This record gives sequence, structure tokens and C-alpha cells, in this order.
Amino acid sequence: MNSRIGVIGGGQLARMMIPAAVNLGLDLSVLAETEGSSARLAATAVGDYHDAETVLRFAETVDVITFDHEHVPEMILRQLVAAGHLVQPGPDALRFAQDKLEMRRRLGELGIPMPDWAAVTTEDELQDFIDDHNGEAVIKTARGGYDGKGVRLVRAAAEAADWFRVLNEDGNGGALLAEERVDFRRELAQLIARRPSGPSALWPVVETVQKGGVCSEVFAPAPGTNPRVLELAARIATTIADELGVTGVMAVELFETTDDRLLVNELAMRPHNSGHWSIDGSVTSQFEQHLRAVLDLPLGDTGVRAPHTVMVNVLGGPTEGEIVDQYPHALADQPGVKVHTYGKSPRPGRKVGHVTAFGDDLDDVVFRARAAAALLGSDL
Amino acid sequence: MNSRIGVIGGGQLARMMIPAAVNLGLDLSVLAETEGSSARLAATAVGDYHDAETVLRFAETVDVITFDHEHVPEMILRQLVAAGHLVQPGPDALRFAQDKLEMRRRLGELGIPMPDWAAVTTEDELQDFIDDHNGEAVIKTARGGYDGKGVRLVRAAAEAADWFRVLNEDGNGGALLAEERVDFRRELAQLIARRPSGPSALWPVVETVQKGGVCSEVFAPAPGTNPRVLELAARIATTIADELGVTGVMAVELFETTDDRLLVNELAMRPHNSGHWSIDGSVTSQFEQHLRAVLDLPLGDTGVRAPHTVMVNVLGGPTEGEIVDQYPHALADQPGVKVHTYGKSPRPGRKVGHVTAFGDDLDDVVFRARAAAALLGSDL
Repeated sequence: MNSRIGVIGGGQLARMMIPAAVNLGLDLSVLAETEGSSARLAATAVGDYHDAETVLRFAETVDVITFDHEHVPEMILRQLVAAGHLVQPGPDALRFAQDKLEMRRRLGELGIPMPDWAAVTTEDELQDFIDDHNGEAVIKTARGGYDGKGVRLVRAAAEAADWFRVLNEDGNGGALLAEERVDFRRELAQLIARRPSGPSALWPVVETVQKGGVCSEVFAPAPGTNPRVLELAARIATTIADELGVTGVMAVELFETTDDRLLVNELAMRPHNSGHWSIDGSVTSQFEQHLRAVLDLPLGDTGVRAPHTVMVNVLGGPTEGEIVDQYPHALADQPGVKVHTYGKSPRPGRKVGHVTAFGDDLDDVVFRARAAAALLGSDL
Repeated sequence: MNSRIGVIGGGQLARMMIPAAVNLGLDLSVLAETEGSSARLAATAVGDYHDAETVLRFAETVDVITFDHEHVPEMILRQLVAAGHLVQPGPDALRFAQDKLEMRRRLGELGIPMPDWAAVTTEDELQDFIDDHNGEAVIKTARGGYDGKGVRLVRAAAEAADWFRVLNEDGNGGALLAEERVDFRRELAQLIARRPSGPSALWPVVETVQKGGVCSEVFAPAPGTNPRVLELAARIATTIADELGVTGVMAVELFETTDDRLLVNELAMRPHNSGHWSIDGSVTSQFEQHLRAVLDLPLGDTGVRAPHTVMVNVLGGPTEGEIVDQYPHALADQPGVKVHTYGKSPRPGRKVGHVTAFGDDLDDVVFRARAAAALLGSDL
């Protein structure tokens, strides 16, 4: 059986695949960008994923290629496939996670509910969109954005002048994505894993809280959710996964509107911050499930292990020293909270870890998770 | 803060410390006996732990030394301490786990309940012991035994002739441990973790089932246990840990007699097979707790995550191929069972993995765990 998994990218997502691989007895190798990456323990190669030769050489050492991020150029992905390597998710799926305009077009064809949107190539087009949408628009670069980077709320097209300038310098005739600003009650996420052979499994819908464009807290399951909303989220994620041929874990970020609709905000075709709760809160974590899925193995039970699980990101970290230096206080104060530290140096706003609490009483669980994150030096 | 942990020995216990270290952002290094050990992912050195220079060189690379097994010679442990290294547990504690006669003597001084025992140096002494104990005795080599090796039930001293011959060849004037055969209802284990600074934490008492001297199944918590027995087990383990100065995890294996007494059978000063259930069944696993304890960090919550957790060892493995080759069937059949595979080649009787099931209904949990172990090719 195929059991050697190669991960391109050495960030915390690759790192968190390591425990799952160790438990299941699977060989995990990582192609990291730098020495000392978050996933350094499993890094068998260090190199640039923009370099086809580097990636192809790495692929020779494993049975299946998967990803810590979505930034590997589509051309290299297609070279991998042409060379006979298994790539999960493959380029035909991944391009919809790599390019927000392609994603919007494809979801539109599938009839998936989304915010109103347009591809705008000039300030005039953007101004028209703004005028049609209550005098504001959320603009996004089609490629390369993450954690709130490449996203801007504008009330006049001139506020996007710098982005249009970059687009024109590119000479690719690119466009920006303009979206209506959605009046949402809260943000939800539906996590799904799908095997190449077709079967998929859904985790419970979670509520996500962003601060400054960065995921800050996740409540699993999303408290007090209308069963109709749960059903709709499941249908949306399953349709996208099946129709786009997604393999491995996919997160569908959703707006729950004040009038009880769901609109797709973003897609991520990999384990995702909104699923970190599952390591301690679900029978099968998103990382274990991702490994099972990319090997086309039967998927695990996605049930919850407690009525409430709350994940809080540790952003930034302590102003002096390392996160582990905070353990004597933090672990003493919160003996039931699970601490996950990514092996990255503290830096303001950087995702350096997360904590997870679980239990029967939501208020208590939230309090404990936030207390632990604060004691570990989180910015927020 | 000290955060670099060095483990001597590259077996599955060292392997299962890796996920805990990754989660907590601690650096784990392993001195393995061979290339391709079970803990190979964290192996930074390969060498013989009987060689003082090898061990001392390894110790230079870490902040604290701990163990996958109890076989490092006491003299080397003392050299490590003399050279200023932190060794957890230290030689003053570890020698009681290394030598069953020393352990029996020390527990006797502490008034800990045990089977009747004697140190026997000749066949005549053994025959006297047998005659005084209903015509039978369990004999054990003082050192080096594990998993039923170095243990024999005899009804005549002549049956131990070969062991006495080896003792005499040694020229160390050694002795065998002779113990009464205890009429027990079942075997229990009390797992405890203790910090160098003193605090300790107990997990629930578990029931262990051995087949052919090897741990086969563990039920956590031990079903239907008299509260008096629980209290006694806690007192025994805490006394031993405190009085012997144990650091890290210790397992106390106990006989529950048909007349409701508890007798100490064996001690292990390291994570132990009777605690593998805690990875999936307790808020804090024995492996995470061991790392916290040896760094003298606050200990985690040892509560259970489900009313019943059952661990079943995978012994031997499939007759053809690797354990992972069984995943397509086994994972499909038991999506809620957690599979732990140790990266060892199948061989009859060898501990190659374990599975854990959990839930509200004990019968169902037992059934699922046994089914998964069988589908993975377990001998038993």
C-alpha cells in the first residue's frame, strides 16, 4: 500500500500532520522552504517550491504529494502529474483554491450561494460595482492572499489604485475580485475530507471569529445553529468537493447572513485553522483525516468528543523569550487545556500556536481557552 | 526554560513521545540502538547505551535525559549525574525498577503489600520456598526481564537449574527472586507521574489482561472496582513514587486478590503499556505527562474523555505484508477506533501496535477494539 506522504511546505499545517503520521505508522516527508521550519522534524528536503526540478526530485522519494499551502505554481503541479506522481489535491481542483476569480466563476456555474461579485480590471469598473453596492466593496487580489492579506474594504475606486497599478505592471491583463460587503450575523466553516475514489466525511459546522482578518477563535460545534443552516452547509461543501474533484481536507468559509442564508466566502483545499479544534475535539482530527484521504484510505469518525470544544489561536507570543518559557504559569493555571506550539519564534501577529479546551459548559470552556492563550502571551 | 529532552532507547515508547513533543513544541532527541528504530523520526544518534562515551556525548545535546527502557547500566547513569546532566528518573530511583530484588527489599521497608518473596541463591533455598508455598513458586531473574521473559512458574527447584547455572557462571553471587503464586481475581495497574519538585498526578486505575506474559488488553477505568481498592492503589503508588524519588511516569502493576487485597507485582519507571489507553482516553496522555514531568512542568489533567476506553495490543501483525496493508479493511470496519502502529516489521508475538476504542457502552467498546486488532492481523 502507498504509505509515503510528501508534503510541500514546512509550516504548522505540515507540522501538525506529524503526530497523525506517527500514530498511523505512515512515512511523512516535508519539502520545507527553509532550515528550521515549523515542520523541521519531518523535513527531508529544503528547497524552493517554485523550482520544478526541486519539487520533482522530492516527489521521487514519496508515494503521494500533498500540501501545507496552496502556492505551488499550477505548471509545476501539472509537471508532477505528467511525470506520473499522485498529487492530492490535483491541479484541476487546486486551481480553484489558488485563484479567487476562478473559484467564483466555478461556484457560480454550480449555483452555490455567494456574495455578489465581479472581476474588475479598471478603476471605472470597480467604481460601477461600488455604486451598485451601497457605496462600498470588498476587493481581493485573485492570488496569493491569506490571513486578511490581499483583502481591502473600499468606498471609492481610487483606494485600489495601487493594486491596479501592480496588476498592469504584471502585464497579464489580470483582474481584481470585487465583492459586496455582506451583512453577516457570524462566520461559519464547514470542513470536509474527500477521498480520490469519492467518499467524503463532514465535521460539525463550526463558528469562526476573525480579528484583523486573522482567525482568532473557533467554537465547535457552532452554538445554537439552525438545523436548516447545518444541512445547507453540508450540501454546499459536498457539492463543491464532488464537483471540483477535491481530495484531502477542504474548508469552506461561510457567511451566515442576518436573514439566515449561507454565502461562501473562501475555500481552502488543505487542513485549515478552522479545523484545529478537531485534534483534541473530534474522534478523527483534520490532520489524520487528510492523510487518510490523500492515501485513499477509509475516512475516520468525525464525531465530537465533548459537547463544546473551543480553539483559540496564540498570536504573536510573549514579548520576551519563547512560548515554552510561559509553561510554568500557563500549564499550572489551565491543566485541562491542550497546548499546541508551532516551533516558531514569537513576532507580533504571527500564528505561533493554539490552545484547545473542551467540556460540557460553553462559558467555562471559552474562559479556560482564552485564559491559556493569554498566559502564553497571545496578542489578542 | 529547559525544553530539549533526550530519550535513551528508540522503541515504541520513545516513538509515542514524538506526538506529545510536537504538540508542546519541545525538542525531542532519541539515542536509538539501531538505524530504522521505531522512534527513528526523532533519532539524532545511533549507538550502544552500554557505552558510557556514547551516552555522555548524546547527553551533551539535550537538557534532560529520560528513557524508553530501564536497561541503561547504573554506572553510566551515575556518570551522567556526576557530569552534571539531569537524569529523570535518576539512578537512585531507577535501580529499584532495574533490580526486582532491590525493589522487593525497599517496598518491604515501606510496608507496601506484596506477594511473599525470598531471594534464593541455591536450589535448596528455592525448594524450601516451594515447600512453604503450596508446592509452587514464581521465579524471576532479578534483572533484564520484560513481557514475561525472565519469569517462570516452577513446582520443583530442579526446574530452575539452568537459571542457577547462569547465575553461578556470572560469578556475581547473584540470586533469583522467588515469589508465592498469588490467587488473584484480576490484574490492575496504577499509573502515576511525579515531578522532581514533588507534585504527582494519578490516572484512574485500569484493569490489565495478560496473555502469555504479555499485556493484551487494558480497560480504563477498571470496571466495577471497589472504591477502597482505588484508594489503596492510589496510596501505594503515591508512597512508592514519593519514597523512591521517582520522576516521570511510573506504572505499578497490582494483583487484586480474591479476598480484596492489593499486592504489588511489578514497577516500571517509564510510560507503560498499561497507560497507552491515555493517548486517546485521557485529557493528558502518559507520554505528554512524562515530558511535562521530566521537565518539572505542571502536570496535566488526568481525567477520562469517555466512560470507557479499551486498548488492545496488536501482537505479531499480518502474516504477509505490513500493518498498513490491512488499513483498507480495518479502517473501513472500525472508523471510530484509533490505530497506533509502531513502524516495526511484523513478527509472531511482537508488539507492533495497539488500537483504542472509547464510548459509553463497555461491551460495544470492547467489541470494536478487538475487531480492529484482529483486522490488523493481531495474533491473539
